Amino acid sequence: MAATPLENYIREQQMSLQWLPFLRALAAELSEQTDAETLRSLFASVGQRCALEAREAFEDVSTLGALTSSLNDFLAHIHWGVVEITEVPGGVAIDHHAAPLAEAFGDDALHWSIGFLEGFYQSLFGQLGAAPSMRVHALDEDCEAMLLRFQFGR
Amino acid sequence: MAATPLENYIREQQMSLQWLPFLRALAAELSEQTDAETLRSLFASVGQRCALEAREAFEDVSTLGALTSSLNDFLAHIHWGVVEITEVPGGVAIDHHAAPLAEAFGDDALHWSIGFLEGFYQSLFGQLGAAPSMRVHALDEDCEAMLLRFQFGR
Amino acid sequence: MAATPLENYIREQQMSLQWLPFLRALAAELSEQTDAETLRSLFASVGQRCALEAREAFEDVSTLGALTSSLNDFLAHIHWGVVEITEVPGGVAIDHHAAPLAEAFGDDALHWSIGFLEGFYQSLFGQLGAAPSMRVHALDEDCEAMLLRFQFGR
Amino acid sequence: MAATPLENYIREQQMSLQWLPFLRALAAELSEQTDAETLRSLFASVGQRCALEAREAFEDVSTLGALTSSLNDFLAHIHWGVVEITEVPGGVAIDHHAAPLAEAFGDDALHWSIGFLEGFYQSLFGQLGAAPSMRVHALDEDCEAMLLRFQFGR
Repeated sequence: MAATPLENYIREQQMSLQWLPFLRALAAELSEQTDAETLRSLFASVGQRCALEAREAFEDVSTLGALTSSLNDFLAHIHWGVVEITEVPGGVAIDHHAAPLAEAFGDDALHWSIGFLEGFYQSLFGQLGAAPSMRVHALDEDCEAMLLRFQFGR
Repeated sequence: MAATPLENYIREQQMSLQWLPFLRALAAELSEQTDAETLRSLFASVGQRCALEAREAFEDVSTLGALTSSLNDFLAHIHWGVVEITEVPGGVAIDHHAAPLAEAFGDDALHWSIGFLEGFYQSLFGQLGAAPSMRVHALDEDCEAMLLRFQFGR
Repeated sequence: MAATPLENYIREQQMSLQWLPFLRALAAELSEQTDAETLRSLFASVGQRCALEAREAFEDVSTLGALTSSLNDFLAHIHWGVVEITEVPGGVAIDHHAAPLAEAFGDDALHWSIGFLEGFYQSLFGQLGAAPSMRVHALDEDCEAMLLRFQFGR
Repeated sequence: MAATPLENYIREQQMSLQWLPFLRALAAELSEQTDAETLRSLFASVGQRCALEAREAFEDVSTLGALTSSLNDFLAHIHWGVVEITEVPGGVAIDHHAAPLAEAFGDDALHWSIGFLEGFYQSLFGQLGAAPSMRVHALDEDCEAMLLRFQFGR
């Protein structure tokens, strides 16, 4: 389904112009040098570091509602969209709207750049006490530029 | 020499908050996985791609003054500072003020992140007809966060 | 109907933080000193001046499609949303999405701050050759923060 | 003294593009309708309202150092520059660097738009317990676009 002018506007405005040329060129260079699986893993490591750096923002959180609220404050501050977190059978569903990921690295890179948010959420839930056996993974088939969907569970 | 409150303010405001956590974490991850020389070279390749993508902005340029002017329009548009380009014996001196490079990747990474602008300027002068034997290199000793100095020549 | 978290996020992110305190305070001060009709007229004059300043962007426009396209380039550049312009019986319908007007001056001030866009569009269509008897007016009942609707006609 | 390219860059980048056309047009319209003294007083009232809205940020402040620190956090958050506050004989000197005021309303309007910061500081010092007989006034002769100087005292 084609995006409306409003959807395109929001997607473009959301992305910092300062880093668009750099990140697009970085994606092109990395794609040429390395396979997608390695890049997804690299980006997951970067995402884990980001969550670790930001951990103070989440340390008093004890419910999913409080987590969602703290996370949305954090994301709004850095212009990274808005998230809905809900309990589902066997785990937690994470719907992340308006992340600048697809716009930054290109739609074609989304299948590996999404590793960044997988690593971020993995580290975040780990800090909150989740067992290491619980994994975050993107629902690749259900992801599109402005709505990235993840599931956290066994 | 310690930076003044105003200099710190300008440095921080200049950097897009959206990508600060990502780029700092990327720098930390890359530094752990790879040596500085390889990273400087990777960033040079990324810079070359950026210059290639932006080449239309410079194709009508035939003097250093016109190059400076086109370049500053381009840089202002993406919030990447302001540049002075002057002829010096044996080449060209490039003083790039207020680039967000040191703030984005950290002061400790500047000795390799600066490869990005080396690659960018190398590609730019190549497009304008410079011989491949002419190289751009950062004057590492004279670089500080808010003033990056390069020389282009043999 | 309550706005979703995503709609609130977009509305808030759209608005420049730099001028939010100033513009909110200006709206409060003006509302105390002056009646709504006078303010709507003041804002219309300000909008006309903006259109006049920007006239170069529209001088080669000869169709509604070309106008829409030039206007959206202009609006995207200054982060003022996106517009759809369509012919309707007796005139032209203008749907302006994601303008920062309601967020800047407050929802309560929208019935007079909207004069800004009325004046802007009035001047714009006048520059393009419309007869002075043709007026732009907001469809107040159909306006909400993120979709402002106008009609241009007799 | 002419501004350097770097100074011009900082001045322009500092100002939100979103409100530049509106605020310039507002200044032109107000200047035509009203005299400078009235406008300076209107802007002082707007500044007072801003300080009142922001008062929570300053309520635990009990020294000039703590005030400077809280104020700079507040200003950095909304991209309004950086301030130095020092005791001088008979009062307090306030040097406000990199405010977007001259860029927003134009250099020609600075002699009345500066009322905004006079009102802001007046209200701020009042909240902190200063006697009403103590007034903030801009040192008009010493003000230039990127350094606005005020004195607070009898």
